Amino acid sequence: MIYSSKDNEKIKEIKRLHKPKYRNIHGKFIVETEHLVEEASKAGLIDYLVIEEGSYINVDKPKLIVTKEVMKYLSKLESPSKFLAVCNKKKPKEDLGTKVLIADAIQDPGNLGTIIRSALALNYDSVVISEDSVDVYNEKVIRATQGAFFHINIVDMVITEEICEMKEDGYKLLGTKVDSGTDVKFVDKPDKFAIIVGNEGRGVKKELLDICDKHIFIPTDPDSESLNVGVAASILMYELNG
Amino acid sequence: MIYSSKDNEKIKEIKRLHKPKYRNIHGKFIVETEHLVEEASKAGLIDYLVIEEGSYINVDKPKLIVTKEVMKYLSKLESPSKFLAVCNKKKPKEDLGTKVLIADAIQDPGNLGTIIRSALALNYDSVVISEDSVDVYNEKVIRATQGAFFHINIVDMVITEEICEMKEDGYKLLGTKVDSGTDVKFVDKPDKFAIIVGNEGRGVKKELLDICDKHIFIPTDPDSESLNVGVAASILMYELNG
Repeated sequence: MIYSSKDNEKIKEIKRLHKPKYRNIHGKFIVETEHLVEEASKAGLIDYLVIEEGSYINVDKPKLIVTKEVMKYLSKLESPSKFLAVCNKKKPKEDLGTKVLIADAIQDPGNLGTIIRSALALNYDSVVISEDSVDVYNEKVIRATQGAFFHINIVDMVITEEICEMKEDGYKLLGTKVDSGTDVKFVDKPDKFAIIVGNEGRGVKKELLDICDKHIFIPTDPDSESLNVGVAASILMYELNG
Repeated sequence: MIYSSKDNEKIKEIKRLHKPKYRNIHGKFIVETEHLVEEASKAGLIDYLVIEEGSYINVDKPKLIVTKEVMKYLSKLESPSKFLAVCNKKKPKEDLGTKVLIADAIQDPGNLGTIIRSALALNYDSVVISEDSVDVYNEKVIRATQGAFFHINIVDMVITEEICEMKEDGYKLLGTKVDSGTDVKFVDKPDKFAIIVGNEGRGVKKELLDICDKHIFIPTDPDSESLNVGVAASILMYELNG
């Protein structure tokens, strides 16, 4: 059977997964492009595939064949890929490891994606994402991670209280401020720590800064505006690596 | 007079400035949003303003009033701003200073913008951009710099030969490779240097790597894909700051 109508219930169900609400209800999300579908497959997350008629992909999962038009309807890309996978959300590991990045209320998908990509490249163990951040299953976030999304532990929808509990679990919390605290160059690397970076406009929220063990910053030219948050998070992770 | 037609020659002339070719011919470019128009004004670059009827901005330059519809036609933003400025291109300074970032064939406007923003924040003197990079006057580049575009020396459309000449001028050229050369942590900071970062897909081009004094890299997890080039450039600039 080839799905050729946008009004088909199954097609509408997939389309709705572009909205965070339905991703939460169903515990599923969408990835697009051959590269990301393959990464999702390696990570064992694929529930089923959606494939444009006449195309082939070497992934052993149920396949739903659709017309080019239906694929265009389902895709968020300007030039739709021929493959799309409906995936089950990742299960976070309980053990966060020793090096953690906490993203507090990051709004831009590209920024959150960059942070996840850098965290993996710089050997961090987990990325913890506050509930008021952009949804990590947003396709722009996943695309910006360049596949890193599938290879690092991600704990999302975390509330402030849970971050407070990390402190009880022995994590040193290092909260970023734009221009005060300790220059990150002079911070001794704790055995187990979490760097907190904050919202693009207002930085890390006060409740979180209040419970931090240390406030850290990257010295920048006082006349210029600040660094992009994805860049700042990456420099902090790099500096605290060794 | 209020311009109300998209077919007006003057309006078409402005619209064409969204294309690199016409920006080159006329030596002009467009900035949008009140914030960037103000930054362009401070930098003394504005030729004239385009303003939606009924709006006001405190910038002493010739003003061309247009209808909301014409503004929408001229704007590249999803929600068009009420202000747009037609600016004269920046004049590069001949003296590049002692700390330079060279962007070789960067294709993504967001990446080039991030590099320029970080260069200013991290006190670099100039950003040199190869002729095969995305046009630095592209509105997405300028937006991603968050105003930094107006406050740092930018030399664009530079050919490989000119970068070679920098070596004769006493610059140490530090070319980035993804995984070989010297770990940037162990590079002695030269008195006068230029970091070269390269294209998102293929890195710094061979002709440039061949003339470098040193190849440098940021150690990353071998299993993961590389860092985003905007992030990598920022970490290198940060680390070589001392």
